[in-house]
Amino acid sequence: MNDASWNRLQRLSCHVPALGLAVDLSKTSLAADAFTVDPLVAGLFPAAFRAMEGLEAGAIANPDEGRRVGHYWLRAPERAPEPEITAEIARTLERIEAFASDVHAGRIAPPTQPRFRALLVVGIGGSALGPQLVADALGSVSDPLLPFFFDNTDPDGLARVLARIDEAAGLERTLTVVVSKSGGTKETRNGMLEAAAAYRAKGLDFPRHAVAVTQDGSELDRVAVSQGWLARFPMWDWVGGRTSELSAVGLLPAALQGIDVRALLEGARLCDEATRVPDVARNPAALLALAWYRETGGKGLKDMVVLPYKDRLLLFSRYLQQLVMESLGKERDLAGNVVHQGIAVYGNKGSTDQHAYVQQLRDGVANFFVTFVEVRRDREDGRESLAVEPGVTSGDYLLGFLLGTREALAQSGRSSVTLTIPDVSPRSVGALIALFERAVGLYASLVGINAYHQPGVEAGKKAAAAVLALQGALVAALEKAPGTFRTAAEWAAAAGAPERTETAFRILEHLAANPGRGVARTEGADPFSALYGGVSRSS
Amino acid sequence: MNDASWNRLQRLSCHVPALGLAVDLSKTSLAADAFTVDPLVAGLFPAAFRAMEGLEAGAIANPDEGRRVGHYWLRAPERAPEPEITAEIARTLERIEAFASDVHAGRIAPPTQPRFRALLVVGIGGSALGPQLVADALGSVSDPLLPFFFDNTDPDGLARVLARIDEAAGLERTLTVVVSKSGGTKETRNGMLEAAAAYRAKGLDFPRHAVAVTQDGSELDRVAVSQGWLARFPMWDWVGGRTSELSAVGLLPAALQGIDVRALLEGARLCDEATRVPDVARNPAALLALAWYRETGGKGLKDMVVLPYKDRLLLFSRYLQQLVMESLGKERDLAGNVVHQGIAVYGNKGSTDQHAYVQQLRDGVANFFVTFVEVRRDREDGRESLAVEPGVTSGDYLLGFLLGTREALAQSGRSSVTLTIPDVSPRSVGALIALFERAVGLYASLVGINAYHQPGVEAGKKAAAAVLALQGALVAALEKAPGTFRTAAEWAAAAGAPERTETAFRILEHLAANPGRGVARTEGADPFSALYGGVSRSS
Repeated sequence: MNDASWNRLQRLSCHVPALGLAVDLSKTSLAADAFTVDPLVAGLFPAAFRAMEGLEAGAIANPDEGRRVGHYWLRAPERAPEPEITAEIARTLERIEAFASDVHAGRIAPPTQPRFRALLVVGIGGSALGPQLVADALGSVSDPLLPFFFDNTDPDGLARVLARIDEAAGLERTLTVVVSKSGGTKETRNGMLEAAAAYRAKGLDFPRHAVAVTQDGSELDRVAVSQGWLARFPMWDWVGGRTSELSAVGLLPAALQGIDVRALLEGARLCDEATRVPDVARNPAALLALAWYRETGGKGLKDMVVLPYKDRLLLFSRYLQQLVMESLGKERDLAGNVVHQGIAVYGNKGSTDQHAYVQQLRDGVANFFVTFVEVRRDREDGRESLAVEPGVTSGDYLLGFLLGTREALAQSGRSSVTLTIPDVSPRSVGALIALFERAVGLYASLVGINAYHQPGVEAGKKAAAAVLALQGALVAALEKAPGTFRTAAEWAAAAGAPERTETAFRILEHLAANPGRGVARTEGADPFSALYGGVSRSS
Repeated sequence: MNDASWNRLQRLSCHVPALGLAVDLSKTSLAADAFTVDPLVAGLFPAAFRAMEGLEAGAIANPDEGRRVGHYWLRAPERAPEPEITAEIARTLERIEAFASDVHAGRIAPPTQPRFRALLVVGIGGSALGPQLVADALGSVSDPLLPFFFDNTDPDGLARVLARIDEAAGLERTLTVVVSKSGGTKETRNGMLEAAAAYRAKGLDFPRHAVAVTQDGSELDRVAVSQGWLARFPMWDWVGGRTSELSAVGLLPAALQGIDVRALLEGARLCDEATRVPDVARNPAALLALAWYRETGGKGLKDMVVLPYKDRLLLFSRYLQQLVMESLGKERDLAGNVVHQGIAVYGNKGSTDQHAYVQQLRDGVANFFVTFVEVRRDREDGRESLAVEPGVTSGDYLLGFLLGTREALAQSGRSSVTLTIPDVSPRSVGALIALFERAVGLYASLVGINAYHQPGVEAGKKAAAAVLALQGALVAALEKAPGTFRTAAEWAAAAGAPERTETAFRILEHLAANPGRGVARTEGADPFSALYGGVSRSS
């Protein structure tokens, strides 16, 4: 009997019994004895483990910004380097639980209603992706507060969310939590203003429905203080946005939704213990980092396709897009060399995605490896599943499709990692979050980059600010010459920006397409020769 | 005055005035005179246009399966090669509209209620992604029927959807549309059975809530006939799953939701007219195909990141994953050479995704090009937007972030395509669908592959069937020896599959983790030595 697959599974996987968690590299390109012979194991891993130990002890792990990186302390406050931090973490958790309990019991209630019934979280990026993942993975229709999100600056999208809130609970029974570390993120600021206006339009007192999660003294913090919001919870400079789910950013919305946040923290804490072990073969996060390195050449040569076979984990790949890509997608290494690192992440869920793109995964361009997530428990409601055939459930099919696709990809020489978790519980979700946080940290050490900054996002923000400044100049020029119709090129010149005609064109087209913006448009001989003119605005 | 960007925009973009649609390649790597000098324009494009013309005229465009490819006829029935097809398309559209109108008016109503209020669509892949895109892009809380989807075989996921339906409308007011071309897709069959069981559990008569969209004579068709379902609508063998949105697959759910399906069809028809033009410079689909070829080397060397700056288009990238990846992800070209083609697609929405992974896009691994979608109209409800600063709306920020990110990527040498549409209306969504359908068809011609088959999906299905067969053998072995506890390796041998111990292990772990499955588990010395034994099943 020669069962190579069983043999490889035993040699290339790692289990955490306390969590029912397993990471399996048997379907990757690694040799069966990789854990002992791969040069990375004795080469780069020891330093990666030491760097992580230093980080956990409070070393400056984000040198560019001179910041410590403390998300591991959130679930083991006693590990924080200073007793003040330990106390602050514990106190904040207690405040979150007390606040949620007061809201659930109606001790904290909206001015005109006995209880809050819906929760609107206003945030983007690290202030939304974790809360959205947890809300969808762990929520149910019987939650005490139904969660909604403003995660963009799309006025139509914001209006749709407000309409859904009206339908489900009414804004008068909605608590709004505004989450912004710096308090300066424009999408979140806009979402807050649009939410406040919606409350006002219904004659409701926004501050009595509002809570802030932000750094002490931020712009948002000052607004919350001056308007007398219901509560403020802290963000700390040692927690980065993409690793903030287990700070107040994620815990407050989760607790309000009725999710067991202590179990989330416990899952992360147990996973941290298992991934702190400085022995690759026994450390599931090290296994992931090793697989990522070998599958992508340590250079992001392949994409990571994330396929949880479980509807509740649909948003896991979106969460990982930020955690992995924003952490690893860097121009320079720590020595300043240009390296253009990163690993692209995408995926939704199985078996659904099989019907979308497994055709390409099996037959097409071999530019990826898959990360399957296998969940042992079929239903979170504890009920038995229907037999869709004698002795066979829908969940058996789900597992069958996972294993069948994994096998078919292996036959085509496509690698996959398989993660196993027992269920989609707060504990398991906390463990998944911690597992990937540490895998990212270890991998960043292996390839020698700073995983904790994001210098590349500033250029886009600056360019966006320049677009809005040009809009201001254009509108001023139009207002100075009411009734005068000119081309985009002429208005760009009038606004002092003749070299920015394309941007002026898109701005003018946008203003003319919307009511009340004071810009009229008449067709020209071609799409680039339309004429725009100022008209009186409705407001 | 030297405005290179304005000059490139005019030379490298294409407008369809009837649709307000524009495709802009000015931020790609193409030379400004590419439309006249690129060798593909005089080289491969003429044959691609001719192949498309033949396809539209009814040639066998899917040689492997001997099938015609007729999705373009759906929006211009007069172009179908036979009058019977023309008549069938028109008749089906009329039947869809009449059925939807009867449902809305309560002439077709559930047995115990005056009107249907919710719509459950059961389908996966091509039978779900289009309906989901359209439902989310064009729906609102005031739709006559609220849409829900079963798009997987996850029992927990199905239970969650049923709970949401109960909350929103009640199953007694829910119409279920089961969509399966062949009628043999297991996920959809399971979803249908789970839905039927849920109706039964509430004492409701499932057939009087059920509609089928399937091929005449399919397994699903036979079930619908024998049980006397409310209605059946046809799928045709000349419509592929991933191009079926404008057949009954997409039109029936959309019409039931209250969406103007004639406008969807009209948008697609107008886009077809604009993209039928055999002149690259004037054909927006040809522009896309040209950009894909040049950006990916005609080999899928780069991923396509799709970023609509509009919440309503969040699912567009998931829709495109199937359309693009299943069509283009092929092992062999038409001559039988091994080519491993394809283009990977991912993305969610801007500006949200900027806060997730624009860091990597700007600074990291340069393995992608972006497709921005710019939407001119800010709100679909016709209302004016709030000023978040004097003279500035949330929508101005949205455009600013799009243009700012596009500019920042261009500064880093990352290419982007920009699509512009006037709004998110049925007409614009129909146009987007048609635009990408034809771009995929043209690109497939350029690289010489069959875009209309999916030979790579069979292997996974076969392997999945083998997993279920092994499960059956294992359960039979356990039942023969009740109370006997053995390892996975021993049970695999007992089931006659000693070489499949890994699969047996995962099956046994899964069965033991769920109630009522008849399998108990005791810990072993290590995770691979647990013991499993048969116990009496609850049912």
